[in-house]
Amino acid sequence: MARIVMKFGGTSVADLDRIRGAAAKVKREVERGNEVAVVVSAMVGVTNSLVDLARKASPLHDAREYDSVVATGEQVTSGLMAIVLQSMGVPSRSWLGWQVPVETDSVHGKARITGINGDELVRRMGEGQVGVVAGFQGIGSDGRVTTLGRGGSDTTAVAIAAAVGAERCDIYTDVDGVYTTDPRIVTRARKIGRITYEEMLEMASLGAKVLQTRSVELAKIHGVRVQVLSSFDEPVGSDIPGTLVLDEDEIMEHEVVSGVTYSRDEARVTLVGVKDRPGVAATIFGALADAAINVDMIVQTAGTTRKATDLTFTVANSDLDRALAVLDGIRDEVGFKDVRPDSHVAKVSVIGVGMRSHAGVAQRMFSVLGERGINIQVISTSEIKISVLIAEEFTELALRALHSAYGLDAA
Amino acid sequence: MARIVMKFGGTSVADLDRIRGAAAKVKREVERGNEVAVVVSAMVGVTNSLVDLARKASPLHDAREYDSVVATGEQVTSGLMAIVLQSMGVPSRSWLGWQVPVETDSVHGKARITGINGDELVRRMGEGQVGVVAGFQGIGSDGRVTTLGRGGSDTTAVAIAAAVGAERCDIYTDVDGVYTTDPRIVTRARKIGRITYEEMLEMASLGAKVLQTRSVELAKIHGVRVQVLSSFDEPVGSDIPGTLVLDEDEIMEHEVVSGVTYSRDEARVTLVGVKDRPGVAATIFGALADAAINVDMIVQTAGTTRKATDLTFTVANSDLDRALAVLDGIRDEVGFKDVRPDSHVAKVSVIGVGMRSHAGVAQRMFSVLGERGINIQVISTSEIKISVLIAEEFTELALRALHSAYGLDAA
Repeated sequence: MARIVMKFGGTSVADLDRIRGAAAKVKREVERGNEVAVVVSAMVGVTNSLVDLARKASPLHDAREYDSVVATGEQVTSGLMAIVLQSMGVPSRSWLGWQVPVETDSVHGKARITGINGDELVRRMGEGQVGVVAGFQGIGSDGRVTTLGRGGSDTTAVAIAAAVGAERCDIYTDVDGVYTTDPRIVTRARKIGRITYEEMLEMASLGAKVLQTRSVELAKIHGVRVQVLSSFDEPVGSDIPGTLVLDEDEIMEHEVVSGVTYSRDEARVTLVGVKDRPGVAATIFGALADAAINVDMIVQTAGTTRKATDLTFTVANSDLDRALAVLDGIRDEVGFKDVRPDSHVAKVSVIGVGMRSHAGVAQRMFSVLGERGINIQVISTSEIKISVLIAEEFTELALRALHSAYGLDAA
Repeated sequence: MARIVMKFGGTSVADLDRIRGAAAKVKREVERGNEVAVVVSAMVGVTNSLVDLARKASPLHDAREYDSVVATGEQVTSGLMAIVLQSMGVPSRSWLGWQVPVETDSVHGKARITGINGDELVRRMGEGQVGVVAGFQGIGSDGRVTTLGRGGSDTTAVAIAAAVGAERCDIYTDVDGVYTTDPRIVTRARKIGRITYEEMLEMASLGAKVLQTRSVELAKIHGVRVQVLSSFDEPVGSDIPGTLVLDEDEIMEHEVVSGVTYSRDEARVTLVGVKDRPGVAATIFGALADAAINVDMIVQTAGTTRKATDLTFTVANSDLDRALAVLDGIRDEVGFKDVRPDSHVAKVSVIGVGMRSHAGVAQRMFSVLGERGINIQVISTSEIKISVLIAEEFTELALRALHSAYGLDAA
């Protein structure tokens, strides 16, 4: 017997038939003797419609009203899920954000959870009642409905799991787990059985859209074991059907590299002939930060003369035009000869906690890419990942080569 | 300057354009210096869709979950209305039932309002903020979302008007007022300028579907002046454009008859040869009451012999089959010869507080119908109304004749 949280995303509750399918999974867990809390998203498409209504009502709408409108999607699903569970003989009731309560700050539209009192949920779970919590929503310190930002139901699920001391938080979605890389590009991609929070965070922020990043951070802080699994597959025996995200200590042996990811939402900017004097980098990146433009990779090449250098960095593709405008505004102050933007680039990364204790991971990456004639434009590294910027056209080639080279290919 | 409540029904907030039209009316009242609270229904069709979802989730759904699902319709409209008002430069915020709070009992699906604390609404109205209250919903004594039953937004509006001490409660709907009779049948029907609560209650329960009966009862108890007017007409000058429902004392001179109504949802049942002994009526009507069948008109004709009598009564058409089954079950106990049902009947009523002080109203009704060869099957009266049951085919004829006879025809 365990206490678990089961979260169903928008495609998993898309209509009443899907809700019945999800409820059947809940019932199975209850029949195994587990105490269950369920967290639901809005039916797929509903949140978009509501967002659209609010936007058409006024492009500059009050975020507090937006939240009150948009939160209704999860309210509907939670009530329907409770009704369906009851019709299957599973005692249950729905909980809205303000009822639990899921307390948040008052940053409407992207509120952060400040606290959850799970006592009443736990008490009722102990009596065999399934609590169906509306995801994505809370109550702000202003007493009004808040929402947690897109994908926020994952965060609700992990936060509820932490609040009720759940043994596991199962995230049911339309994929059956986290893969070593994008299976649409690399057909020999494998489902990962176990992955650490740190790796999952790198995977999520680098393009694998399985779990909301914030939910993984929250799971790491509270030590919540998160399992990603498909709503549409049936589990086979007692095997773990999806991917388990957990603490490094819980994984006996690590692969050196767990996954290879890519992102095409990158643009490179090179400033040519930047005057080489103290404070110049601060001026450039300060101006970009003031415009709320996030800079990712940065590399400064040694100047060809003592007085000038080249500076290369990357921003999100969607920020490129604004970044160029900012640079234009500080051109005289900074003093550089030319700006060379390039939006046809991709960032490819290899990720793995194992590289902490293994040498040669980066070198292998560079060799593999070099052997295929792929030029590396920028390199950045962290403790558990190595990212390179390459021309966009080589993305698939690089992904397949690296996936093989690190031994990730399925048998 | 006055404090007023403006309520917009489902067709008046059917889409964003209609919401903008309603908001323009609110803005006009604010610009006149009035303090305004707005009560909104769900967009037309939305409540039906939500009810349908709940019903399909399970025909025997938990009323608490049903309420949580169905209340989202008004939540969406209240947020959108607040956004639109803000975009027009009118300060406003939405209020959900639990936020005001609109406290109710816990009879989910048809809860009754037990109290409203309007202090915060009044304070903000005094600061120029329009409060947009989601109609139809409240918070039960169990801390959960309740709904007030279909048409409940009228009741919310009147209750809010009472709570904030509003001078007037304007109900904007898709008709422009209360008419002397159904204008689809009697083309010379007139809009009534002023009508008493008592008359309005009789009109509402007898078939004029303009205002929810409960809202009129509530208005009567709290002395709230209710105005029914169209969302789609523009007011002409300073004239009252709709129908004002108010206390008898506020109307200087009363018409003898204010309106003529009809209902086709009637069925007559005649029990022939009922044994004439004490307690027989109690047995019959007790059995019908136990089956939750509402009996309206009752008439007992003097028996032709000392031992038997005929008993005639009416029930709603939809209850007829169940009523016949109940009668069949007590046939031996009661002892009657025959049951004669007739569902092709209509009830026609004349209503007016003036008939308290005028004699001859009933007699004129009987004469008018008699002159047209319309047979009166059953008669029932109250202090301010006279109802007769006639063959359904004479409904239009009777309505037109009575409308003329009581001087109600438009010039």
